[in-house]
Amino acid sequence: MEVLSLHLGVSHFATPPAATQALQAALSQPNQYGPTEGIAALREAIAQRYQEDEGISVTAEQILITHGTKHALHLYLSCLLTPGAEVIAPAPYWFAFPEIVRLAGGQLVSLPANPAKHYALDVQALRERITPQTRLLLLTNPGNPTGKVYSPEELHAVAQLLEEYPQLHVLSDEIYDGLVFPPAKMRSLLQFEPLRNRIAVVNGFSKSFAMANWRVGYLIAPAPLLQQSTHLQHQLIGGVSPLNQLGAAAAMHNRHALWQSYRQDLLPKRQKVLEAIGQLPNLRANVPDAGYYVTLEIENCLQAANPRSPFQLVEEWAAALKDQQGLEVLPATNMGMPSAVRMSYALPAPELDEALSRLRAFVS
Amino acid sequence: MEVLSLHLGVSHFATPPAATQALQAALSQPNQYGPTEGIAALREAIAQRYQEDEGISVTAEQILITHGTKHALHLYLSCLLTPGAEVIAPAPYWFAFPEIVRLAGGQLVSLPANPAKHYALDVQALRERITPQTRLLLLTNPGNPTGKVYSPEELHAVAQLLEEYPQLHVLSDEIYDGLVFPPAKMRSLLQFEPLRNRIAVVNGFSKSFAMANWRVGYLIAPAPLLQQSTHLQHQLIGGVSPLNQLGAAAAMHNRHALWQSYRQDLLPKRQKVLEAIGQLPNLRANVPDAGYYVTLEIENCLQAANPRSPFQLVEEWAAALKDQQGLEVLPATNMGMPSAVRMSYALPAPELDEALSRLRAFVS
Repeated sequence: MEVLSLHLGVSHFATPPAATQALQAALSQPNQYGPTEGIAALREAIAQRYQEDEGISVTAEQILITHGTKHALHLYLSCLLTPGAEVIAPAPYWFAFPEIVRLAGGQLVSLPANPAKHYALDVQALRERITPQTRLLLLTNPGNPTGKVYSPEELHAVAQLLEEYPQLHVLSDEIYDGLVFPPAKMRSLLQFEPLRNRIAVVNGFSKSFAMANWRVGYLIAPAPLLQQSTHLQHQLIGGVSPLNQLGAAAAMHNRHALWQSYRQDLLPKRQKVLEAIGQLPNLRANVPDAGYYVTLEIENCLQAANPRSPFQLVEEWAAALKDQQGLEVLPATNMGMPSAVRMSYALPAPELDEALSRLRAFVS
Repeated sequence: MEVLSLHLGVSHFATPPAATQALQAALSQPNQYGPTEGIAALREAIAQRYQEDEGISVTAEQILITHGTKHALHLYLSCLLTPGAEVIAPAPYWFAFPEIVRLAGGQLVSLPANPAKHYALDVQALRERITPQTRLLLLTNPGNPTGKVYSPEELHAVAQLLEEYPQLHVLSDEIYDGLVFPPAKMRSLLQFEPLRNRIAVVNGFSKSFAMANWRVGYLIAPAPLLQQSTHLQHQLIGGVSPLNQLGAAAAMHNRHALWQSYRQDLLPKRQKVLEAIGQLPNLRANVPDAGYYVTLEIENCLQAANPRSPFQLVEEWAAALKDQQGLEVLPATNMGMPSAVRMSYALPAPELDEALSRLRAFVS
């Protein structure tokens, strides 16, 4: 039986044709290093996107093109954090965050999210975690794996915290922002222009543009941090391939058509997955506002809540699902989600049907 | 007057057609992250190259594909060095070395090279610089900018040092190794197989393959360091775009034809430059064994040696050459070469003629 890999963070969408065409057209360019900060065509395309789509003022000079979003995060954290700094991350967060924070000298402080409250940001609990060592609030919006998009009220509460704590910075990881399903509406944290001297955003082309193999991300950060991050990128690695950047720029210009086509494909699949889960005992899932994951809350499949269960840990449950049914999902324990697994539905319909039937066979 | 940029480290050669064809063929590949360590096709092509060309045994598993050679160096140094470690670098070395070493916690100790001795490795002086803190010997072979290729005797002297000092590692930066002019013969430091547990090599596709804008390099290192470097690359950035790697693999398979064509283009230009310099007062240059730079020794153009000169510093001389004649060359002071400038001759013949005529006008 072939294992179905629903644990992965890549979609089944093909590379945007606009990107491959732009890259092909660029192949005759002379052999030259690109600028460390990124090529103007891409930085301008990104700036234009925020202006056109959200009316947010971002200039090309405020953007650093990086070797993927992970590296954007690394550069920013290396420049912001000093040893012992605390970084509060409301769950869910990408499983690589704790280690990236640690390598930059900081320490990640996790803030749980409550599935029963649709993973709402618990501002009071967040406030209680702020100490004199707290330097950064690290948001994931839309959430991975919850697909939770923060409401205007939640974002305003974050802005309010920034006003109260003058040492606090906020970084928002918005890499799934092109995959939002109405009526949910994504607003970048960059909207709070008067606070932009302490607001940063990382983003990239691997998720919302199906270009995981192109390795292009970006950082938008306050001027001093952007300057330091650019310098560090220059010292340690250099700029991203201009060829790949030209492809990314073309994809960005084509974003509305791409995102519409992704939504058209994903919406019925989301529906199908949620309906299937609704019929299964002991599994719960909220409706994700964005992205291509469903977060299965499996608390009732574990011994603590269900003494008849053979599974103590989420990892054991996931391993059994793989062993018995050939269905691989991702335990979300190291994403700040102690009793959840992540399951992608960005795959061809027949594979998704097969995956759901295996899941059904496993839990029934 | 248009400035002629002979200070740059890129050649006028076009991207290898084999590379662009391979990339185009790969554009329909599915949207997936590549492996952190690099794709098998490229790692195997590199391993094959050492086996076929030099009879050196390198396996694909001993190679990490990196985001350019600079990043290979950063990963390796971050894993090898501890705070306070000393790194001895025989001149010439790439101007970014001191800073990359510092960011990894070490300190670069420069070892001068004597132009009157054709930049021979001064083993005695090297030996005198070894202290209990010395952790690494950082070689540049072929030299940048000297084009010096270390002789078998010099390389054996390095191997001898490794045997004498069990705490010592050696990293050889061999990025110009495809551009060697017979009778000079390049031998990788990897040849010393019994010492390979302390020998590493960094290399890449920007110089010897005219693919500066593809951002592909590699690290060959002892197993524990390679493993740590791979893990660090995974944590901080992820693997290189498989698209770019496929292009690099195709170029590597085509290396003999490429290198022959590069030599055919560069050899008469090297000759022309050396003849021109031979006729100019106060300038000296050795015949470079490799690469596409001539190192102009301008000691006799500076006040210390020539009281009638208006220039105290190499930088002043170079600035005047740019201001007065629109010819930009690179002061090599931060490459461990206190009275030299680097001048590229990898440019179209008419531009090179014009550059030499401007140089003539300036020094005459």
